[in-house]
Amino acid sequence: MPRQVDHQARRQAICDAVLLAAVREGFGQVTIRRVAAEAGASTSVVTHYVAGREELLRLTVRREVARRQAQLEALLAGVRPEGRLRAVIEWSVLGLDETTHRAWLALVVGAQTEPVLRRELDGFNAWWDTLLARCIRQLGAPSGLPADTLVDAINVVVDGMIMARFEEAEPWPSPRHRRTLDALLRSILLPPGQDGEC
Amino acid sequence: MPRQVDHQARRQAICDAVLLAAVREGFGQVTIRRVAAEAGASTSVVTHYVAGREELLRLTVRREVARRQAQLEALLAGVRPEGRLRAVIEWSVLGLDETTHRAWLALVVGAQTEPVLRRELDGFNAWWDTLLARCIRQLGAPSGLPADTLVDAINVVVDGMIMARFEEAEPWPSPRHRRTLDALLRSILLPPGQDGEC
Repeated sequence: MPRQVDHQARRQAICDAVLLAAVREGFGQVTIRRVAAEAGASTSVVTHYVAGREELLRLTVRREVARRQAQLEALLAGVRPEGRLRAVIEWSVLGLDETTHRAWLALVVGAQTEPVLRRELDGFNAWWDTLLARCIRQLGAPSGLPADTLVDAINVVVDGMIMARFEEAEPWPSPRHRRTLDALLRSILLPPGQDGEC
Repeated sequence: MPRQVDHQARRQAICDAVLLAAVREGFGQVTIRRVAAEAGASTSVVTHYVAGREELLRLTVRREVARRQAQLEALLAGVRPEGRLRAVIEWSVLGLDETTHRAWLALVVGAQTEPVLRRELDGFNAWWDTLLARCIRQLGAPSGLPADTLVDAINVVVDGMIMARFEEAEPWPSPRHRRTLDALLRSILLPPGQDGEC
């Protein structure tokens, strides 16, 4: 079925072009014209696959989110329930590449002004917070913090670790990343009094 | 000296226009033409005050940074040495308005691609990290963490609190902000074993 394969490849190339432009210059700079040029196609080829710019953004974000969700679920299937919270946090901070972190930053920034990005981000965050809450239950709320505060604190740590990386010209060396994450997690994941052990 | 006053006001209006455009759409969208339109001036008026786009960005970032530094130094002058670390963190997370946080996010994103923004951000961060290190010495490194890890952890918390706010459509209510910050700071600012008190 060569035509079928071509369609699939074309759709993927279009989403790749959207992502590349968003990571480089923000979702605000993504236009049908630009994506067509980047994907080596005419604008009418792009509009054959997507109804317009909004659908272009939605399809791309959904593809990326679905990929990360599948990765994470495959990872968690191999981890014991009490280890899952830490595995999720470490995956999001240490297990993703720089392009994915840049795409994430672009999504959060873009959601400030583009309702389509806001909806996709809200949908992902609802899924993510539910996942964290389940992992917290499996661990048994060890730090004594209420579950919703623990979810908020974990989200601050994850966002902050990603953002702190972009504050400096060079990525943090891996041991520095690890030390900082451990220092932050020791209070929110360990029971009071066990701090000195980390 | 009416002409002198006009010059000052013109420069301020130009910087205001740069900041507004950067907060709305990122520093990448700031052009001489756009700033002139925003400030109600011709492009030749703008280039009378600044040599070009790079100087426009530098002047604006430096003005903002100098304002924040002056604010913070005035605040710290009224706080006892052992309270300064927490005061700096709380000021950066809870004491700044949304526009300042958006400008900060725009600066970090813009520094990825614009060398002039990278230099200003590096300069500010060097000043900031030195300030944090001084406040940590005044507090006496209570958590047992090495000072450089503590600086990194605080920066992750500050960045993460700012970023987490933008992940949701609405700002966090103030008590939620406070609870999350306290949960994160209890491990990095308190000695081991005192966790339960927060």
